[in-house]
Amino acid sequence: MKIGVFDSGFGGLTVMRALLERLPQADYLYLGDTARLPYGAKSRETVARYGASSARFLVAEGAEFLVIACNTASALALDAIREAVPVPVLGVVETGASAAGRSSTTRDVMVIATTATVESQAYTAACAERGMRAIEKACPLLVPLVEEGWIEHPVTADVLRIYMAELMEVARGVGLNADTLVLGCTHYPLLRRQIEATVPEPVRVIDSAEVTAVEVARRLNAGGQGSSTMRFFATDSVAKFRGLGSRFLGRPIGEVKLVELE
Amino acid sequence: MKIGVFDSGFGGLTVMRALLERLPQADYLYLGDTARLPYGAKSRETVARYGASSARFLVAEGAEFLVIACNTASALALDAIREAVPVPVLGVVETGASAAGRSSTTRDVMVIATTATVESQAYTAACAERGMRAIEKACPLLVPLVEEGWIEHPVTADVLRIYMAELMEVARGVGLNADTLVLGCTHYPLLRRQIEATVPEPVRVIDSAEVTAVEVARRLNAGGQGSSTMRFFATDSVAKFRGLGSRFLGRPIGEVKLVELE
Repeated sequence: MKIGVFDSGFGGLTVMRALLERLPQADYLYLGDTARLPYGAKSRETVARYGASSARFLVAEGAEFLVIACNTASALALDAIREAVPVPVLGVVETGASAAGRSSTTRDVMVIATTATVESQAYTAACAERGMRAIEKACPLLVPLVEEGWIEHPVTADVLRIYMAELMEVARGVGLNADTLVLGCTHYPLLRRQIEATVPEPVRVIDSAEVTAVEVARRLNAGGQGSSTMRFFATDSVAKFRGLGSRFLGRPIGEVKLVELE
Repeated sequence: MKIGVFDSGFGGLTVMRALLERLPQADYLYLGDTARLPYGAKSRETVARYGASSARFLVAEGAEFLVIACNTASALALDAIREAVPVPVLGVVETGASAAGRSSTTRDVMVIATTATVESQAYTAACAERGMRAIEKACPLLVPLVEEGWIEHPVTADVLRIYMAELMEVARGVGLNADTLVLGCTHYPLLRRQIEATVPEPVRVIDSAEVTAVEVARRLNAGGQGSSTMRFFATDSVAKFRGLGSRFLGRPIGEVKLVELE
């Protein structure tokens, strides 16, 4: 089985890392649309166009199953991507919302994500479909903090404290009794421990990278041992992809092929 | 005189704001290539391609003089842009370096900028041409902090303190006796007061937006009173452009036209 993983940048490598643990015998194609990142500040039309061309590229390279590991693309472009390719497509927003549905007993959920993901209200809609209320908060400083490498850093702890206090304030304001927090951006799993240290006691943190890997493994009815191949594609600077990407994947990245889309 | 101002996003509006003060009678065309921002993490080839197509667009709209208000494009793509259009082109890197040359008596200069600008070492080269030594430091958190609106904010003060301490440490390490700090990113003028409060006493801060406006006014031999027109173009979300852009321009932005490049 060839699994195509798509993200605007490196963040989706946290999803691929989780996939490698659960489906070690699959073959992987990873595309980071790094020339056009971040999708987080772009409009629905633009993200849909970029997502569709990226999906077509991965299928042309042999992908038989697509994981949209980019929250913004999952939120804004999942329908456009499904129309663009003839293979099954799974997005992190729906798997994140489904996992929240299994976790939450109060049926009240909080989501942190990029500005575009929040503005799309895709998590709110996906949670509503599953009988939950959700509030979403944009945390635009977290991605640059992760990329700066300030993971265990007092500034990051301060920023998280501020964002979480603002989120809790909004939750109180609308009478939300949330017991679950969804990490709605693939950069955030690198801050999972720091985020868990900031949320109040009963709140459980859902890592969308991890739950997506679990869902892919379930759908492909797979598991077990084996060896796999990995190929990496990027639309810009392969050197940066290798350097920063290895931190997200948790292992060294070898060859990265530069590709041009559209 | 029609002046075209180009940036990857909103930051160049700080340059346009300074231009409006000095050349109030000129007509302005501003293009923010917001669909493809930020240029800061992209390769030289990509930035050159984007810069050239943006410059051609502004000239086709009537610009007779181009200001490349994007440090990354000035650093990586100035030659490509000059080849692409038949009008005079001025970039913020050369004007910033020239202003540093007039300011510095020790001939040692420091520059803060985005990662791509620093990696290009364009300021170091431009300073060397003017008989100065320079060190450059990437400050990737400052743009998102400005865009978050955290201008007078303790987290921003902390981040600036950390970045400045790291910069001074490097300066000491290479025996640099710097008396001038160039703000090599058009977002940074919004943090000018905070930055000035962080640098040690003898260091003077050069705002590349301001010195670029002075240089354009000098070249166009202009000044005086008059009324002007302004037209705004963006390659993505005009709503975001209006909202965030007004903060950078210091006055409300009316109509923004969505355009597609390439």
